[in-house]
Formats: sequence, C-alpha cells, structure tokens
Amino acid sequence: MSRIVALEVSDVRFPTSRELDGSDAMNPDPDYSAAYLVLRTDEGPDGHGFVFTIGRGNDVQCAAIELLAPHVVGRDVEKLCADLGGLSRELVSDSQLRWLGPEKGVMHMAVGAVVNAAWDLAAKRAGMPVWRLLASLTPEQIVELVDWRYLTDALTPDEALEILRAAEPGRSERLQRLEREGYPGYTTSPGWLGYDDAKLARLATEAVAEGFDLIKLKVGAALDDDVRRLGVARAAVGPDVRIAIDANQRFDVDTAIPWLRRLREFNPWWIEEPTSPDDVLGHAAIRNAVAPMRVATGEHVQNRVMFKQLLQAGAIDILQIDATRVGGVNENVAILLLAAKFGVPVCPHAGGVGLCELVQHLAMFDYVAVSGALDGRAIEYVDHLHEHFSTPVRIRDGRYQVPIDPGSGAEMLADSRQRFAYPAGEVWRGGS
Amino acid sequence: MSRIVALEVSDVRFPTSRELDGSDAMNPDPDYSAAYLVLRTDEGPDGHGFVFTIGRGNDVQCAAIELLAPHVVGRDVEKLCADLGGLSRELVSDSQLRWLGPEKGVMHMAVGAVVNAAWDLAAKRAGMPVWRLLASLTPEQIVELVDWRYLTDALTPDEALEILRAAEPGRSERLQRLEREGYPGYTTSPGWLGYDDAKLARLATEAVAEGFDLIKLKVGAALDDDVRRLGVARAAVGPDVRIAIDANQRFDVDTAIPWLRRLREFNPWWIEEPTSPDDVLGHAAIRNAVAPMRVATGEHVQNRVMFKQLLQAGAIDILQIDATRVGGVNENVAILLLAAKFGVPVCPHAGGVGLCELVQHLAMFDYVAVSGALDGRAIEYVDHLHEHFSTPVRIRDGRYQVPIDPGSGAEMLADSRQRFAYPAGEVWRGGS
Repeated sequence: MSRIVALEVSDVRFPTSRELDGSDAMNPDPDYSAAYLVLRTDEGPDGHGFVFTIGRGNDVQCAAIELLAPHVVGRDVEKLCADLGGLSRELVSDSQLRWLGPEKGVMHMAVGAVVNAAWDLAAKRAGMPVWRLLASLTPEQIVELVDWRYLTDALTPDEALEILRAAEPGRSERLQRLEREGYPGYTTSPGWLGYDDAKLARLATEAVAEGFDLIKLKVGAALDDDVRRLGVARAAVGPDVRIAIDANQRFDVDTAIPWLRRLREFNPWWIEEPTSPDDVLGHAAIRNAVAPMRVATGEHVQNRVMFKQLLQAGAIDILQIDATRVGGVNENVAILLLAAKFGVPVCPHAGGVGLCELVQHLAMFDYVAVSGALDGRAIEYVDHLHEHFSTPVRIRDGRYQVPIDPGSGAEMLADSRQRFAYPAGEVWRGGS
Repeated sequence: MSRIVALEVSDVRFPTSRELDGSDAMNPDPDYSAAYLVLRTDEGPDGHGFVFTIGRGNDVQCAAIELLAPHVVGRDVEKLCADLGGLSRELVSDSQLRWLGPEKGVMHMAVGAVVNAAWDLAAKRAGMPVWRLLASLTPEQIVELVDWRYLTDALTPDEALEILRAAEPGRSERLQRLEREGYPGYTTSPGWLGYDDAKLARLATEAVAEGFDLIKLKVGAALDDDVRRLGVARAAVGPDVRIAIDANQRFDVDTAIPWLRRLREFNPWWIEEPTSPDDVLGHAAIRNAVAPMRVATGEHVQNRVMFKQLLQAGAIDILQIDATRVGGVNENVAILLLAAKFGVPVCPHAGGVGLCELVQHLAMFDYVAVSGALDGRAIEYVDHLHEHFSTPVRIRDGRYQVPIDPGSGAEMLADSRQRFAYPAGEVWRGGS
C-alpha cells in the first residue's frame, strides 16, 4: 500500500522580465514563476503540480499550498486517486481556509495545484496522460468529479450526464483523429507590447510559416499604437490569417467600446479581457456594443460561479479556461460542462510557464468526451520555457500533438527547479 | 520629518472554536484571528491595521501583508497621509502581486489592511477618529480617494461629486445628531447555530432588553431546525422586533427559493448570503422569488466591481460592507458612493474580532457625508473580544456611540497581541 509521505513545495522563478517577454498593458515586467509542489509517495510515482504566478508573491502562494498538507499527507494513494472528486470537495470545504477566498485568489489556486498534483499522480499510476485518463471515464464518473454547489440553477448533474452520454458514441473516432491530426493551436509569441514593429512583423510572418492560422496581439496601452501595430501585423500575415487582440483588463466598459470599434477595421477575431474579469455585466455590455467582434475571457476568472454567470448573461463568445487559476482539473471539468451546455467554444489560455503542458489535456478531453467539437477552438501557444519540463508540448504545423507520456505534464526537470529556485538558485544568486 | 521605518506583522488568534461562538452553517469551528500589522514610524503615532480571518491561513495572510512593505517602508509619513488615494492605487497596481487576485482574496485583503493602517496613522496625526476625518474632507477630496477603474459605467467621478455636494448642507446637523444619539446597531449574539434553543431564547430576550430592535439568526443547516429556532426567537421577542436571517452561502439558487419561502411566515427582515457571494445573477433570481423578503450580502464580496454589479442587477436590498475584505477605507468609500447612487441602504457586517471597531467609522461617515440617511440602516454588533482593543466600541440602548479617540479603532492592546500570538502566545502554548 502506497501512502503520501510529504507535500514538498518549492519557489521557482524565471527572470523573464529581463527580456520583456510576456509584457502587456497590465503586466509590464513579469518574472514567470511556479509555486511548485510534489506529492511525495513512499512507493511508485509522485504527483507534481504548480500555480503559475508572475513573480513577487510566489512565496506566499507556496505557503498557501503548504497549508493543505494535512489534508493529503499520510493518505492512502490508491483511495485518494479513486476519489478525486472527494479530494477536490474536501479541500474547497476547509472552512477556515475557505474564509480566505472564498474559492478565489491565492487560497483557491493553492487548492487547484494540489488537486492537479493528485491528477498527475493518478495518471502516472494509471500509465496514461491525464487527457486520456479523463476520456476513459464513464459519464457517471465524470459527473462525480464535479462540485455541484452553486451550479444547479444553470446545469444539473442530470443535464451533464445527458451531454456526456450524447458524446459517447463518437469518442474513439475523435480520439483517433486527435492522435492523427493533433489539436489546433494559436500563438501569442509575436504580439507582446514590449516588442518593436520590426520584431512584431518578423514573428508574425514566422508564425504563419510555422502553420498557425490565428495569432494574438496585445493592445490597450495607447490607441494610436494599437492601430499601427494591428496594421503592421495585418500587412505581415495578409487578410486570411486570423488576428485576435488582448487588452489584459485595461479598459473601463465605456472606454472599451469606442476603442474596440476603432479597431474593427482590422477585423480582429476576438477581443480578450477587455475589462475586469469580475465584470460579468460589463463583458455583456461590451459584447453587445462591439459585435460582430467576439468577446473572450477566462484566464483570470476565479471559479465556476463566475463562468456560470458569464454564460448565463451571454457575456462571452469564447471561454478561456486556465489550468492553474481555478480549483484544478475538477473545477475545469465543471467549466467545460457549462460551456457545452451553453454552446460556447473553449479556447484555453496558456503560455506563462507550464500552462501549455497542463491545459492541453483539458482541451483534448473536451473534444473526445464533452463538446465533441473542434470548430472555433484553439489552445494558446507561446514558445517559452518548455525546455524545463520533462514532457514538453509538441507542436507541429500549428497544432498540439497529443501527449503520450503518463501524467499531467506538470513535472518540471529537477535541474531547472534547482537552478531557478528563488532566491537561492544560481540564476538569482548572480543578482537580477 | 517622520518616516515609516518598518511594517511589523503579527499572527494573533483567539481560540473561539472552544466555545462555538461564531458557528454557522458554513463555518462550524472558527478561531477568530487577526493578521495584524503596525506601520512603525520614527516620530509620532504608528498606524495599526489587520485582516480578520477565522484561523488556519492567518499566517499566509500575514505573509501577504509583508509583501507590501517595500511600498511603504522609508516613506515620508506626511506625504503618504496626504495622498491616501494614491497609496491605495499604488498597492492595487503592483502588477506582479495583482496577478494573485486580481483584487480579490488574500492579496487584496492584504492591500486593505495596509491602506487601513495608513488611515489609522493619518487620523491619529490629525487627532481625529477616522469617521470624522473622512467627514471633514471636501467632496473633491473624497472623490480623489477612489480608484475609479471599472466603475465609470455605473458611477462617474462627476456623479459622485453631485451626490457628495447634495449632502454637504446637512453635514454639521447630522454630525451633531450622531454625537447625541449614536448610530443604530443590531445584534447577532443570540443566533449562532451552535447554541441550543434555551440559550437562543435567553439571549434574544436579553438583546431586546438591551435596546436592540433587530436581531439576527443563522439558518441553512436544516430546514426543520430553522423553522423551530425562528419560532423560538419570534416567541421570545414578540412580533415587533425585527429578525434577520443569515444562511452564510449555504444554498444553491434553486434550493434557496423554496427554503426561504417556507421561512416567510416568521417575517424575516432580510435573508443574508443566501448563496455564493460571487453569484450576482443568483442573488437577483432569489430576490425576485422571495420578495417581499429583503436580500442582503457583502461580507464576502471581494471588491467594488462585484458590488457594482449587485447594484446594477438589482440583486440586493441591503448592501453589507466589511472593513477588511476589500481594499480598505478607499474601496469602501467607492462602495458607499455606489450604494448612494443606487439608493440601497448599507448595513455593515461586523463581529469577528475588531470589525465593529473598524466599520462603524464608515457607516458614520456615510450618514454625515454620503447618503445622509439612517432609515433602514444598522451596524451589526456582536459582543465578543472588544476588550482586546485600546478604543473598544461603545454601545448604548442598542446604538453605537460615536468614536471619539483618534484613529481607526484597529489598535489592539499590546498585551493581547502577545498573549494570543500564534503559536507562541500563552493561550496557545497550553495545547488545543
């Protein structure tokens, strides 16, 4: 019998601010970081997980993860892995810790990291990547993963079962198609605000050459710059490649509307995060005013209750899940089910460090077992920091190739965790 | 010239779970705690502030507060106190730390505690209690306190100026009335779920004898118990004393509606937190279905963007601010202005440890300078732990008497901070 013998946490930070990779209108100087944990077992594989942050505060995020150790250390691994829905509900329901959210921010992301580490462990024990483990579950088992609290006015367990049963017949066909063709990706690599026009044009051209038919540009700092940069990008890629834009929460509702109408001439595929991720009604107002431009959000949306409302209010055309913002795989399964109910396509947020590695599993599970659809869907791709992971994503012709190694993709190379450890790792000891 | 020389943090916890004080349907065993900070100056008074939590995780909340030290340590006290709006906006805008919310949960509460400590400092230097300092500001100065980002579709600075100017003529009259008569309070002391019927009846009767005409009962664990307990309370206080009920987020929308309709026979004054604090649309649906029962929420509402939507959606009859959940005095000023714009009365959440001491200042400022109204308003009162504060609240005939000492009310006695320090204080060394 295997037990969890420790929850080990480490603060890992990459000095990305030195190069302005990842700069946008709200985040000028991020140091991509992971509040990283290992569920150490006494026998068999360990489970890895993390929260993505952008630098300062990664230590506090680590401390929040450590608070959850009493819930997992000492537990029987087999039983834990057999009831990941129960684990997820237990962690969210620790009433003293729940007060620090509830179900949002540092404490909720900590829950998500532990839940994700448990999924990594379960998938490694099953000898499967997480997407395939998820896609092997029955509709009843999938429904059991979800914490239904606060969801039932929009989606009941019975409705979820119907959705999942309706998708059952085509599962194996879609799985084979995924293995053959991969899952569509799109790239944000050309579009960071810190890049000059020449670099933007060069990277946009390269992205198309690599097979991407959707790229994304950061906007929202200055309207004239946005007009110019969208012009540069459009000239570089031609009329047929889709260009999404991302304001990273920069606007008030009444600022967003004229600004985005001005940018409509470039035919943006979607506008992402036009305002506060908390503003359901604001997103709905913007969507009404800038149609037919699509509205997308989700990377900072705190939990399933907010996603539920974004869908109920008709506030978004595209739902962007994030692997480490909410309470882990289980809450993301709930969100995928909500999106399917409302017929809204999911285009996962990724990038950062390790987010591509994690979130691809959710998108692929969605295709095989939930929505059954690929149209209008794509997973964000940014070509940063993949070399630090033991099973990095594989992109071919602008498409994510299916993960084949067991686990969730979260495992970072031990050597990287050591070199980029903050503040003691060699990268940081030299000064920054 | 005085400077801030240190931001000192301490983890203070009261073992309230030993007595079941504070037990409700979601929080069965809270240990009321304060993540406490002192802005230490080299000359003149210091500034005190805290975040209220219910136990585990108070250490993480302390660590989050410490992250903000670089923003304040070394600063000129006079300049800092002269631009508290600027301080508030600076703390919220630290982009790396903002990622951990944004503007919600542990990191946002940390911002609020530092902002509140700066208000304590400013008020002590001015020789005034915070409510009076706020009420001495011009409409222009009050508008300058607010971070307007994400608010302007519901309330513009110009509209806020109009509201504040309209309230100017009566300020001194209302201030004098407050000094004479105090501000209405209501009490939750009788109604904790952990108390038996006899204790509930006794405490309810005592509350009325003490002058309260509004009491509150916890509900939501079991419908039969709620019916019985409401019957006991109604019998104890008679038909004229108002009884509010509080479900502490226990229900789904579709569970709440029949449950609350069943309780309407007892004529509850309001239902508080019927569901997730994040569920704007859910509150609106419940309010429509249980009218004329009033719907109240706010103690767990994370920021001004959520309050804006609760008001825009017509989701609440009563708005409950909390002194340490949002980004401090400044964000609460924004919320008071929003409530005034939408004509919704504010009944502050209090209790916990020190929340009564803090939040009374905001309610009194609202009466003097913002809404100008007392009708339908009352500040929650719980008779716990006041003895640990250097300027405890004074209640007479069920009314809060105006604070007269300089500061915000946050300062806890040094002896209490030492005895209840976690885990080293004498109260905790004894075990449990």
